[in-house]
Amino acid sequence: MQYVILEIFISNCRRFRIQATFQGKLLMGKNRLEAFSDGVIAIIITIMVLEMKVPHGDDLAALYSLIPVFISYVLSFVYVGIYWNNHHHLLHAVQRINGPILWANLHLLFWLSLLPFVTGWMGENHFSTWPVAVYGMVLLMAAIAYSILELALVRLQGKDSELAKAVGRDYKEKISLVIYAAAIPLSFVSRWIAFSLYVAVAVMWVVPDRRIEKKLSH
Amino acid sequence: MQYVILEIFISNCRRFRIQATFQGKLLMGKNRLEAFSDGVIAIIITIMVLEMKVPHGDDLAALYSLIPVFISYVLSFVYVGIYWNNHHHLLHAVQRINGPILWANLHLLFWLSLLPFVTGWMGENHFSTWPVAVYGMVLLMAAIAYSILELALVRLQGKDSELAKAVGRDYKEKISLVIYAAAIPLSFVSRWIAFSLYVAVAVMWVVPDRRIEKKLSH
Amino acid sequence: MQYVILEIFISNCRRFRIQATFQGKLLMGKNRLEAFSDGVIAIIITIMVLEMKVPHGDDLAALYSLIPVFISYVLSFVYVGIYWNNHHHLLHAVQRINGPILWANLHLLFWLSLLPFVTGWMGENHFSTWPVAVYGMVLLMAAIAYSILELALVRLQGKDSELAKAVGRDYKEKISLVIYAAAIPLSFVSRWIAFSLYVAVAVMWVVPDRRIEKKLSH
Amino acid sequence: MQYVILEIFISNCRRFRIQATFQGKLLMGKNRLEAFSDGVIAIIITIMVLEMKVPHGDDLAALYSLIPVFISYVLSFVYVGIYWNNHHHLLHAVQRINGPILWANLHLLFWLSLLPFVTGWMGENHFSTWPVAVYGMVLLMAAIAYSILELALVRLQGKDSELAKAVGRDYKEKISLVIYAAAIPLSFVSRWIAFSLYVAVAVMWVVPDRRIEKKLSH
Repeated sequence: MQYVILEIFISNCRRFRIQATFQGKLLMGKNRLEAFSDGVIAIIITIMVLEMKVPHGDDLAALYSLIPVFISYVLSFVYVGIYWNNHHHLLHAVQRINGPILWANLHLLFWLSLLPFVTGWMGENHFSTWPVAVYGMVLLMAAIAYSILELALVRLQGKDSELAKAVGRDYKEKISLVIYAAAIPLSFVSRWIAFSLYVAVAVMWVVPDRRIEKKLSH
Repeated sequence: MQYVILEIFISNCRRFRIQATFQGKLLMGKNRLEAFSDGVIAIIITIMVLEMKVPHGDDLAALYSLIPVFISYVLSFVYVGIYWNNHHHLLHAVQRINGPILWANLHLLFWLSLLPFVTGWMGENHFSTWPVAVYGMVLLMAAIAYSILELALVRLQGKDSELAKAVGRDYKEKISLVIYAAAIPLSFVSRWIAFSLYVAVAVMWVVPDRRIEKKLSH
Repeated sequence: MQYVILEIFISNCRRFRIQATFQGKLLMGKNRLEAFSDGVIAIIITIMVLEMKVPHGDDLAALYSLIPVFISYVLSFVYVGIYWNNHHHLLHAVQRINGPILWANLHLLFWLSLLPFVTGWMGENHFSTWPVAVYGMVLLMAAIAYSILELALVRLQGKDSELAKAVGRDYKEKISLVIYAAAIPLSFVSRWIAFSLYVAVAVMWVVPDRRIEKKLSH
Repeated sequence: MQYVILEIFISNCRRFRIQATFQGKLLMGKNRLEAFSDGVIAIIITIMVLEMKVPHGDDLAALYSLIPVFISYVLSFVYVGIYWNNHHHLLHAVQRINGPILWANLHLLFWLSLLPFVTGWMGENHFSTWPVAVYGMVLLMAAIAYSILELALVRLQGKDSELAKAVGRDYKEKISLVIYAAAIPLSFVSRWIAFSLYVAVAVMWVVPDRRIEKKLSH
């Protein structure tokens, strides 16, 4: 019983503290941040398909010509999915939000918003050198923006927070940053090496999580 | 009173369990999954209308030429509506979410995101053979993706969950899968047979539900 | 105290009843319906601006040529705003949702989704006869769809519900329906009469509400 | 314990008051207003990128030609981010919403919805005089619309509300209005002066907040 009351009390305190500090424009609820980010990410993932223009022909040949654009779309869809998934996890453990975090989040959304553009450019040019390199740069900048957001969140929640520990345990982000940074110059050696590296990073994020979680959820 | 306390306690426990398991990235709330899916589905259903380009003429003849695109749009609007409706029902009974479910959900959204493209292609080509067949393939893949999502959800909620029972009772999904699989080759015999089958499946999902519910809600 | 317990109890019962009836796919929460409708309406109101193509010239003359498209956009923006506002009010008083209501809502969203198309068509053709008439038809169909949604909601909530009383008091909807129905044939007499009637209905919805509310909120 | 019960009681009363006054269409929840605004702002910030058309070339030269459009996009992205941020703060402290507020909010969203258009126009014309001036007019109108929304909110919450005090302390809005009003005629003297003023206002909103908040959150 005391436990229950305590819990309600804490939740009330938290609510009042948030309102109190609002006057100084300090702390905000994270709900609208999540809702706004979900909205932007949902739009990014969906408008990318608009780059896949309806072809004029009505036969298979018309579809064949779209295959590079389609592959490019699939890759970017998976990447945006990964970012949404990670963003979801990151904010799940967060209690407090402030101004720098809002801007760090918008900075991440900015780089993600360029994905439809580079996806279309890469697909329409059949994965030629410069588009593949620029695609990698956008991935690298998005990954850096994600790291900045993470740092801002850890700073506000404190070094002993669960978030700080969870972030410290995460090696995949650092590996991804290194691979992106390597893929950009490598795309001038061979664009297929760069493209394979982008696919490899995406696979790294999608597959192992599933395996570990399956094991754990049984 | 005890009941009330119990209820609050259970809800607290659930909350803490979710937070505790977050560290291992296991369980997440379903709210953001619903919100994100709603966002993507809302965008898909709305950007389809962008495929209906504003004609240059200002008379009825200009509108007549858009009739195939319009019919194609209506059919896809209804299909996306059915998916949103079913997705809504499916997640309503769900308590737990994990990584594979997130990806199964994104996989469903991926196939739905191709609907605006195939809708435009089918409409602009006046329901010619290949576009009608490819439209059926996207419907089939979306239906398969929905089944995978359902399986992942049932697996996590347990075989004795209400969800498992509800899914087991549902024959419409299996019938739809069979009809889509039949319609694709049949579109090479006659594209109107295939188109009629797509309409029939849509009607099956929209109409009977209404009749049963009306009966039950009186 | 008893009052508080009662309230929590009722809210629990309601929650369990919803879950219980979920198995028969009967009652659903209205939150996702609201969220989905908000998403679709937000997208409709925003993509309309995409019909206002960026002109090639960089002087005032380039902007002048866009004036009809701009006026058309303003009118539709106000209409979508009115629908969102009314939809918001309508669902606010609603406790229960069922399948027919979901479809009645999608039916309304369907007609609203055609607004960007007819807005562009009317603006680009400088308010010529057929586009003005077709714009009125879409407004009429949206108004009819709204009435159907209202009837479905009143039916489920009961004739003695507050919603039923509020709907019964509302004459503006009936007046709007009559004006739209009159404006369509009148657009063949003079398109400016029809256009003025559309503006008049919009003004009727925006202005008086404000005056009454201001009086009441003091 | 009494505190807890009181809190639940107040929250119930608030809920009932809202429902009671709904019949007279007076007060509404702010949640849907926030959700709708977030939706529209998320779409505005994302569709702006669609003005950055995928170039036909696949080399750096093709990208170079997009630099003005890109700079224009970055500026508008930051502005929409500022508006979302401020809107978030403004509504956070608000308890009551009425009809005029809904329309004041839609009025703000209207001017923001024109940003993708003027962003594209300004970028494609390499910041020539008229587009730069018109961009400033849209910024000015959005700032005026924001002030009107603020006044409507302060009026409803009361002059002694925390919101009224917070708004009274805020000089940045007034400074921004003056700068926009000055920048529009100055763009005919030199478009770069006007552009610099737009950048300066954006910097004023993004940077100092961060510094103050950082200081305060330690």
